[in-house]
Amino acid sequence: MTTTSVPVKTKQTGLLAGETKNGIGPGEKMKALLYFGPGKKSWEEKPKPLINEPTDALVKILKTTICGTDLHIMKGDVPTVSVGRIIGHEGVGIIEEVGTAVSNFKKGDHVLISCITSCGKCDYCKRGMYSHCENGGWILGHLIDGTQAEYVRIPYADTSLYHIPAGSDEEALVMLSDILPTGFECGVLNGKVQPGNTVAIVGSGPIGLAALLTAQFYSPAEIIMIDPDDNRLATAKKFGATQIINNSKENAIERVKQLTNNKGVDTVIEAVGIPATFELCESLVGPGGTIANIGVHGKSVELHLEKLWSHNITITTRLVDTVTTPMLLKTVQSKKLDSKQLITHHFKLSDIINAYDTFQNAAREKALKVILSNE
Amino acid sequence: MTTTSVPVKTKQTGLLAGETKNGIGPGEKMKALLYFGPGKKSWEEKPKPLINEPTDALVKILKTTICGTDLHIMKGDVPTVSVGRIIGHEGVGIIEEVGTAVSNFKKGDHVLISCITSCGKCDYCKRGMYSHCENGGWILGHLIDGTQAEYVRIPYADTSLYHIPAGSDEEALVMLSDILPTGFECGVLNGKVQPGNTVAIVGSGPIGLAALLTAQFYSPAEIIMIDPDDNRLATAKKFGATQIINNSKENAIERVKQLTNNKGVDTVIEAVGIPATFELCESLVGPGGTIANIGVHGKSVELHLEKLWSHNITITTRLVDTVTTPMLLKTVQSKKLDSKQLITHHFKLSDIINAYDTFQNAAREKALKVILSNE
Amino acid sequence: MTTTSVPVKTKQTGLLAGETKNGIGPGEKMKALLYFGPGKKSWEEKPKPLINEPTDALVKILKTTICGTDLHIMKGDVPTVSVGRIIGHEGVGIIEEVGTAVSNFKKGDHVLISCITSCGKCDYCKRGMYSHCENGGWILGHLIDGTQAEYVRIPYADTSLYHIPAGSDEEALVMLSDILPTGFECGVLNGKVQPGNTVAIVGSGPIGLAALLTAQFYSPAEIIMIDPDDNRLATAKKFGATQIINNSKENAIERVKQLTNNKGVDTVIEAVGIPATFELCESLVGPGGTIANIGVHGKSVELHLEKLWSHNITITTRLVDTVTTPMLLKTVQSKKLDSKQLITHHFKLSDIINAYDTFQNAAREKALKVILSNE
Amino acid sequence: MTTTSVPVKTKQTGLLAGETKNGIGPGEKMKALLYFGPGKKSWEEKPKPLINEPTDALVKILKTTICGTDLHIMKGDVPTVSVGRIIGHEGVGIIEEVGTAVSNFKKGDHVLISCITSCGKCDYCKRGMYSHCENGGWILGHLIDGTQAEYVRIPYADTSLYHIPAGSDEEALVMLSDILPTGFECGVLNGKVQPGNTVAIVGSGPIGLAALLTAQFYSPAEIIMIDPDDNRLATAKKFGATQIINNSKENAIERVKQLTNNKGVDTVIEAVGIPATFELCESLVGPGGTIANIGVHGKSVELHLEKLWSHNITITTRLVDTVTTPMLLKTVQSKKLDSKQLITHHFKLSDIINAYDTFQNAAREKALKVILSNE
Repeated sequence: MTTTSVPVKTKQTGLLAGETKNGIGPGEKMKALLYFGPGKKSWEEKPKPLINEPTDALVKILKTTICGTDLHIMKGDVPTVSVGRIIGHEGVGIIEEVGTAVSNFKKGDHVLISCITSCGKCDYCKRGMYSHCENGGWILGHLIDGTQAEYVRIPYADTSLYHIPAGSDEEALVMLSDILPTGFECGVLNGKVQPGNTVAIVGSGPIGLAALLTAQFYSPAEIIMIDPDDNRLATAKKFGATQIINNSKENAIERVKQLTNNKGVDTVIEAVGIPATFELCESLVGPGGTIANIGVHGKSVELHLEKLWSHNITITTRLVDTVTTPMLLKTVQSKKLDSKQLITHHFKLSDIINAYDTFQNAAREKALKVILSNE
Repeated sequence: MTTTSVPVKTKQTGLLAGETKNGIGPGEKMKALLYFGPGKKSWEEKPKPLINEPTDALVKILKTTICGTDLHIMKGDVPTVSVGRIIGHEGVGIIEEVGTAVSNFKKGDHVLISCITSCGKCDYCKRGMYSHCENGGWILGHLIDGTQAEYVRIPYADTSLYHIPAGSDEEALVMLSDILPTGFECGVLNGKVQPGNTVAIVGSGPIGLAALLTAQFYSPAEIIMIDPDDNRLATAKKFGATQIINNSKENAIERVKQLTNNKGVDTVIEAVGIPATFELCESLVGPGGTIANIGVHGKSVELHLEKLWSHNITITTRLVDTVTTPMLLKTVQSKKLDSKQLITHHFKLSDIINAYDTFQNAAREKALKVILSNE
Repeated sequence: MTTTSVPVKTKQTGLLAGETKNGIGPGEKMKALLYFGPGKKSWEEKPKPLINEPTDALVKILKTTICGTDLHIMKGDVPTVSVGRIIGHEGVGIIEEVGTAVSNFKKGDHVLISCITSCGKCDYCKRGMYSHCENGGWILGHLIDGTQAEYVRIPYADTSLYHIPAGSDEEALVMLSDILPTGFECGVLNGKVQPGNTVAIVGSGPIGLAALLTAQFYSPAEIIMIDPDDNRLATAKKFGATQIINNSKENAIERVKQLTNNKGVDTVIEAVGIPATFELCESLVGPGGTIANIGVHGKSVELHLEKLWSHNITITTRLVDTVTTPMLLKTVQSKKLDSKQLITHHFKLSDIINAYDTFQNAAREKALKVILSNE
Repeated sequence: MTTTSVPVKTKQTGLLAGETKNGIGPGEKMKALLYFGPGKKSWEEKPKPLINEPTDALVKILKTTICGTDLHIMKGDVPTVSVGRIIGHEGVGIIEEVGTAVSNFKKGDHVLISCITSCGKCDYCKRGMYSHCENGGWILGHLIDGTQAEYVRIPYADTSLYHIPAGSDEEALVMLSDILPTGFECGVLNGKVQPGNTVAIVGSGPIGLAALLTAQFYSPAEIIMIDPDDNRLATAKKFGATQIINNSKENAIERVKQLTNNKGVDTVIEAVGIPATFELCESLVGPGGTIANIGVHGKSVELHLEKLWSHNITITTRLVDTVTTPMLLKTVQSKKLDSKQLITHHFKLSDIINAYDTFQNAAREKALKVILSNE
């Protein structure tokens, strides 16, 4: 989830209301991070959530993290988040309790929480488009209370949680809640990265780096990373980029032309979300190639069909479906993917205000992803 | 080919020059339609072309037609067409002579001429992207002399001509030179039309109708045709559209919402080529759907990524590759495709000036495609 | 389901036991067809089933049918069916009651029952392989009581039932419980039928005819039907076969060679299930082609790899997943598929013993599918 | 090419005859390895070949190798090889001369020779099935003279040769003539190897190892190598196998069950070519999985459809098309593939009789592939 402007699902209002009424217990308390309007957040006591529907699970958070989207929420950019909402849509935890219809999980199971809630039974879920689930989608830390808390209620637990294999590095798996499936599904799969191909990634932030890491599953010949920040490019190099271009200092279009014999690249992954970077992608893609958009755009962009109409290109957009989570779990377990590289900082969950401060100043702090531990 | 602004392939200049020098014989003469600058054309005598390369064939034209692109050329919209060029890139004919390296064809063979010249040996041809052939592509009636003539030289004959089965209706096959593969490849295949799906086609001109005819190969549940002209929509209905919408009279977006339970369509085919119609497509496509562009655009369009970034959509562009010509030939032969429906008028080739007049006034004349016969 | 030997899912024993204990009410009664060992069946009174799990639905049967598999069960060929089991896995009905976790359906909804039970939350269901569902698969009328009864309990109702649109012909939809998805998924989709291609179908019984009907979604140029029975071939011709071959009278291999210029066909669909017909398929498939097996085989077959190893062919097997049911519903509604053609006889449900007699003597009775109505 | 029994293309007889008549010069001589019937071969003088068709190239061999198929030829297993034939279908060299219709290559170019000759203009070539080229296919060192010689004539040079980039390691590229595209296309691509999947490869000879190397392009979680030879398994381990099973010592089926939670593997690659190994593959593949056959089979195998009919599996066969050669060249250049690991021995071309001796005793000599240099 890297959102500046997000889709409003009015249908969830009911669920939201239901949750407010019934999903929170009268008795027990916990601590959580609450959004109180633009610029205002607070780590404070809240009632511990309860099982609300037979398909719910209650999860005790072990590790969570902060997403770029959470920063947008905190700035007030996501109007569908109401005041008082608990933020956060990533994490791993332990099952405390399950509803009567939950059969895949039981108390004590270690689980990975998906940022996308999937009911498993609407048309979109059946097509693998969990992001558009008619009863879920991105609701955690958005339309219902989220994971930056000691406990979280997870609807449709059977299809929204994943078992963590014994002996796993749980911090590494927090990266599978959102950022890695986002880079992989929206960037790499949609971009049809193939062995021997040439890939350009515009944007070397956490999400671009997630695309870089997972693009290597398919052994492209070249991965060209483009960003205006030398630090981020150095990280990209360390993570496997074969070429880096600082586009504040050199002409990325000319460099890519040189690197590709004037043919352009097979896949361009947009990992920023502004008109200038999308238009750069349009200039980098070669005939027959694909532009896979990951960036969350707040404005329309100019699509140069007067040039591209005859170039046999494909442009894709996607909100992460997390349909590849089982596949990604196997790649982490088999050490094909070292997701832990994305983690730069560690905090106690109770120290979350400081964690936000670090993450917000990512350039200064050289921060990628932070881990918050509920100890 | 339905082109207002076309890609210039400067690499073909050499070929062009070569052809001017060697490809035209000193002795025999023929008649042909020549472009003499914006608004000026003439049916006049020219030297009959000669075999120029061992891979060439010389074809006597039997039937040809006029394309929307030819009208653009005649208006001066295609600056890469030089004065004196013979126009036309469609037709069927008889082989007169072949070069020493041609092995698939011999004198006397009846052949379908593809609008796209494919060398069969560059990287793009090997990938099936004949439109981007490094030695061909769209050159006929553009960078080299074309088919609105009594004879035409066809480079790379083995990979740019197709045998016409005995007993075929040759007029029906003229529709396979360009318009049907264009509608099929750029619209239907790129649009991933599937059984049971809902398809919208924006633009009910010849190219939109070609998409309509070939979309039915895949048995979609609904094909919604959108155009501001009632006559064209009536034709669409006759050709198999299940719904028609006159968007000069009613709100196409609202109608499509009603027809699709507010979900939008699975495939939208853009068959016009202006910003307004492309933006209409953006409003019609549902989550998980595809916009397949066929239209030739002279200007950039506004892509509403602020809305579409999270809708899991695909946008494709394509210059026809004619890679499906063998498949289309089989569908015509087996009567799965009645391509002759597109033909509304007949002329003698020598009467081509009148044929242009009719085709140019398509609305008044209720013209779709005209056939010119070299009798 | 066209089964002579079926996969035993011992894991369902628990579910079976559970169902015996709790799924049947003490009070109300209904009539049902029971299997009492090889050759013995009876239409008799049984307790009406009850909701057993929160994900169950109780359905009142409106229409059901008999499958070739049911004949095998009655002969004793399916040892996993216990004595006393209610047979049947197809039908349409009305929801009587739903469990607390069912959200897609409510009392009074008209529903199509899928022959495959899908839990929607195991790994196989997430991959669209409902046939291998770890909690379902083919269990109806096999490991749990089935649809040849006045009422049936449907586990995992949300993902195993489908809404019937108002105004539908419900008899036509009974064909979507099993036979049409089987022909389509196992034969047509696995066989990659494409526009312009040549398809051979070996076996012109109900399942071969279901493949024939649904193959036409993709507009192949030729569909060659092969069977030793002239009546069945006449039906195939009426249903759209372009060529018919009676292989008891003529050499099918030679005829197909003639029809395909010695190239063989692109797709062969095996719809019988014996070694001789499978080996026939091996002789009919051309280089690059596919053999899609639908037939239920009781013995191994000889695979001529000494010839086929270099022919670039594909062989597929599949137990129907019914993952295309939503697509098929749309094709029936939009009249792209006239599934009713498969129905030849009608009986009252209470007259089921006679219906079995007719269906068992299909050749004599010219029977394809029979409809049993619970009036 | 790893062939015991090969497809006879009688259509090439003409070409063969043509070549005998015109393709060999009267004057210049060269040295070559000739087949003189079962068990008889000789390194002797032959006329140097000449350009025969305008599409031919004459190549001076720099490096070549010996294939398992060559051993079969020498034993007399390939009856389509006539006495006096020059053997060999792999190698790199320098262009000496090209025919008048060759445009991709010129004298002096360094080239990779494909084991498959592709005309680029028949139906099969257009579909990417070069192995079934109507004018080529596997003819080198089979139906026409091959590469174990100082010079070789290459028909359809434009579509059967590949440029070697300056600075390449040419020995590494000899592995791209046959063995690596064979392992990759027939095993890995047909087997649909995917990130996170489990792959078993039966047979750890050169071809199984080629599959092992190229399977890693797709980052499967596990690659299980099965072979009765510990040495070969040790090599497999070094080349990236995650599990090795000596099936002369342990039960491979049981071990694979343990390793896969009784689910079976996603992809099994058959790289031996005998009934026992193919049947082993049938026992290893899980529901939804694929058996990709590479092995050259001399006999039919038993296909257990009585079990597999309902397992949703796919079986593929393929003669290498070398359609992925451009992709593989990029993976070698970008160091994603270290093809040189397959080379164990070096000889002078003139020492080819000793090279055969070593290669024939692969187990004793621990030989994988040998390089023969024409110095």
